[in-house]
Amino acid sequence: MLAHVSFVPTGTGEELKELLARAAKIIAGSELNYQLTSMGTIIEGDWDEIVTIIKKCQDEIGHSAERVVTNVVIDDRQGLDNRLKNNALEIEYAVGGELETNGLT
Amino acid sequence: MLAHVSFVPTGTGEELKELLARAAKIIAGSELNYQLTSMGTIIEGDWDEIVTIIKKCQDEIGHSAERVVTNVVIDDRQGLDNRLKNNALEIEYAVGGELETNGLT
Amino acid sequence: MLAHVSFVPTGTGEELKELLARAAKIIAGSELNYQLTSMGTIIEGDWDEIVTIIKKCQDEIGHSAERVVTNVVIDDRQGLDNRLKNNALEIEYAVGGELETNGLT
Amino acid sequence: MLAHVSFVPTGTGEELKELLARAAKIIAGSELNYQLTSMGTIIEGDWDEIVTIIKKCQDEIGHSAERVVTNVVIDDRQGLDNRLKNNALEIEYAVGGELETNGLT
Repeated sequence: MLAHVSFVPTGTGEELKELLARAAKIIAGSELNYQLTSMGTIIEGDWDEIVTIIKKCQDEIGHSAERVVTNVVIDDRQGLDNRLKNNALEIEYAVGGELETNGLT
Repeated sequence: MLAHVSFVPTGTGEELKELLARAAKIIAGSELNYQLTSMGTIIEGDWDEIVTIIKKCQDEIGHSAERVVTNVVIDDRQGLDNRLKNNALEIEYAVGGELETNGLT
Repeated sequence: MLAHVSFVPTGTGEELKELLARAAKIIAGSELNYQLTSMGTIIEGDWDEIVTIIKKCQDEIGHSAERVVTNVVIDDRQGLDNRLKNNALEIEYAVGGELETNGLT
Repeated sequence: MLAHVSFVPTGTGEELKELLARAAKIIAGSELNYQLTSMGTIIEGDWDEIVTIIKKCQDEIGHSAERVVTNVVIDDRQGLDNRLKNNALEIEYAVGGELETNGLT
């Protein structure tokens, strides 16, 4: 399962990037395959692994923010693994040339 | 302005990756700075540039699918450019170490 | 906590509305306060209640679809309950007049 | 075309609901069929109508916030209109009983 998650904290005295950095640390410290981008983090794992990590991040951010809006997109496709890189590779292959993945593929 | 866009076509005889490849080609053929990931494409530009490209992609996919669900997240921050790479860089810096960005930073 | 969830199944022989109806039945059969709209369902509950119900829906749909894309937005605000109706009411009040909520307020 | 839009402003001295009320007023003042909920507003129209109204809202909020994160989901289905109510009605019908739509259906 692939998940793309992003957090928008409001009502906080701290800089957003400090709070997002704390969430990023939690994800990086897990065993899961992940990719940080400017618009969120992609995580690969099973349902329990993914929701557990999102909960930890949301709680961590919630310590310093009155409100957190969390956006999660889950892509659940039967029988496939290692999709964090392969999904992008497949599209490149179908295009028939290189695309800008900033190093992913 | 940064936008993260993803398309989910349904009611189509074609393979999803073929349709998404056509959209990817349109984005790649524009002048805009972009990054393809497994969960969508990040595009940097102004409002008009971004909506124009999303419309082209949606229309292109719509030629081969009865229905398209398009997900767009726009991050509009006053006075900042070059954020496709810098936003991720800032979080890495705040974490105080390297994070997995698969080559972006 | 408020969550807005929507499911887009692909690779299914069934009509989308049949699959979405099965998910709607699961949500309706839970004890949670919810609101069905044309673009998704809003659910109010705590984290565990919300993720449990989303998992049940995703699994149910997954029985009949090769792939499910699930979109979840979570709005977690400290110390407030009964927000499914109140959030919309607050905005109406701030506007200073009635807004179209199709009966919610 | 149906769109579900929500705005999360940050870096603002004003209360979120004041800014969201200004956006709600703009949508309500347009000719478009819409529905305000606790998690966003559903708008029905064609592409240009929808993006025009979203831009107006984002700009309005941007006058009072350093940063706005806008989330848009577009559901584009060939050949169908009046879906703001009908999509929810269809699911109720498929369920075979009433669902909580808070007055929509």
